[in-house]
Amino acid sequence: MPSPSSHTNPRHKVLFDTDPGIDDAMALYLLHRHPAIELLGITTVHGNAYTEVTTRNALYLCDRFGIDVPVARGAAQPLVGKKDHVPAMVHGDDALGNIGPIATPRHPLDPRPAHRLIIDTVRQYPGEVTLVAVAPLTNLALALKEDPAIAGLVRQVVIMGGAFGVHGQIGNVSPVAEANIICDPYAADQVLTAPWPVVMVGLDVTHQVLMPRAMFERVRDEGGADGQFLWRISQQYLSFYARQERIDGCYVHDASAVAYVIDPSLFQLRSGPIRVVTDGIAVGQTIQNASGRQYRSPVWQEGPAQSVCTEVDADGLLKLMMATLLA
Amino acid sequence: MPSPSSHTNPRHKVLFDTDPGIDDAMALYLLHRHPAIELLGITTVHGNAYTEVTTRNALYLCDRFGIDVPVARGAAQPLVGKKDHVPAMVHGDDALGNIGPIATPRHPLDPRPAHRLIIDTVRQYPGEVTLVAVAPLTNLALALKEDPAIAGLVRQVVIMGGAFGVHGQIGNVSPVAEANIICDPYAADQVLTAPWPVVMVGLDVTHQVLMPRAMFERVRDEGGADGQFLWRISQQYLSFYARQERIDGCYVHDASAVAYVIDPSLFQLRSGPIRVVTDGIAVGQTIQNASGRQYRSPVWQEGPAQSVCTEVDADGLLKLMMATLLA
Repeated sequence: MPSPSSHTNPRHKVLFDTDPGIDDAMALYLLHRHPAIELLGITTVHGNAYTEVTTRNALYLCDRFGIDVPVARGAAQPLVGKKDHVPAMVHGDDALGNIGPIATPRHPLDPRPAHRLIIDTVRQYPGEVTLVAVAPLTNLALALKEDPAIAGLVRQVVIMGGAFGVHGQIGNVSPVAEANIICDPYAADQVLTAPWPVVMVGLDVTHQVLMPRAMFERVRDEGGADGQFLWRISQQYLSFYARQERIDGCYVHDASAVAYVIDPSLFQLRSGPIRVVTDGIAVGQTIQNASGRQYRSPVWQEGPAQSVCTEVDADGLLKLMMATLLA
Repeated sequence: MPSPSSHTNPRHKVLFDTDPGIDDAMALYLLHRHPAIELLGITTVHGNAYTEVTTRNALYLCDRFGIDVPVARGAAQPLVGKKDHVPAMVHGDDALGNIGPIATPRHPLDPRPAHRLIIDTVRQYPGEVTLVAVAPLTNLALALKEDPAIAGLVRQVVIMGGAFGVHGQIGNVSPVAEANIICDPYAADQVLTAPWPVVMVGLDVTHQVLMPRAMFERVRDEGGADGQFLWRISQQYLSFYARQERIDGCYVHDASAVAYVIDPSLFQLRSGPIRVVTDGIAVGQTIQNASGRQYRSPVWQEGPAQSVCTEVDADGLLKLMMATLLA
């Protein structure tokens, strides 16, 4: 029988939608290790690599970290158009930082498609499941399409994605677009306008959280075999950031979404309907009407108010990460 | 023979492209009155009202203020699509704050279309003319189309328009779009990518310059007949701002572009190629690649670097305005 404390403060039931990916691996490790999280399953999707690769990586990471949850393969293509680009210069050709040959995964692949695992998990724990999505949102859109009622059954959807120009416009794929959203803008628009509570952890905050190289070295030195592995896969990622952004460390993207689930008090939020630009030069841009204004087009007054992270306690977030990684 | 000082500090030769319009009238008055400006001509266009109305108003304002320069009627429609909206709640049905019947203008209408007056004026003073455009950019685009070489012959193009999200996203027609640009986004995109030096005075700065109601009352009380007129046409504008923005005053839009010409040291600028979104939900958005990043799409590396005002000395600007209005 559960203790009283587990009644008042149950663990967060999390389904993780991901395209591992270096920072996906870090985020997954946090989800696996943090005592406030109960990881229920993993769904894979295109993004940092083709789905074949991200799925293999997810299975491999389960072996590596000792994670025992269903892993289901998801969409290989966005809802519209065709995946034509893999950011190999960021994540490596293997999306694990070009670490060389890895063992063939032993972890079984769930027979269901990812969107079906999402639906089944949400329906298994009505009102309890947090979807943490740190990749293009195709699987979530497919789940909504097959079973729209799940929107009323999830606890919340926490998304690493988007760039809202809170601190001046800046994207990472265009001046206004962030990678996860631009990889499937139609799916993102559907997910963000669905009647479930969404929290966007976008570049506005993740670009404020810089994990310095020295912290990766502490993870290597004090984090055991897992820490050494996380350090190893991060070397190309660090090189990319040093070259591209001239910083000696990495922005904490996917793990910031996990940190939000664990401790939302690290963030400040604003509220308002969100839409995604689906084509043209601004494709992939996320736009929120956070002002409450009545604009001429009804687009900006329709749809549920969603939350966007505008500020983050970067030091607090890094402390939370390190405490979890080195626990 | 001119004095040495007029050699070293000649007046700015300005051609004014406008859709009067309350704040257009104020900007025109500043251009007319400031000793550093030599107003060469006025071109009208659709925007705050239909072109028939803005042209009548421009002629009437010339009568009223004693301005003796050519006034040429410009485009009645954007390059693409049809004008379907007049912001009567802002500028009044007459675009002069619903002040009632006005005298039929005596000032003659130049027989040339606006874009021809632009071309002729630029070619008359090669390298000397500043185009001050505070309206949809259709006339400038038509001038470029008819005579692309003028791009190399103007001194600068100073535009009131755009919203670059410098201080967080905010437009006045959508969360990302400003009125002048959204009224003809195709023209704006052509004007901003042409090889002439453009300075954008957009909402990022004009929303920082609030002219309080009390300042309008000083203009009324100390500005003679012209001051009383400017106060009178501003009453509906002030009511609009009180109702819509809950501020007791007006943002200084068009006059800020004039202030930039007179004293650019009031502003801080950033540089980079600019593009305009021409359709979809972000239509009318101005996007600048100010980061110098190499994005995947060549769109963000092509085109001339243009300037965007990011900061303004609001007190200094208001002082400049008041000193000119009450001189």
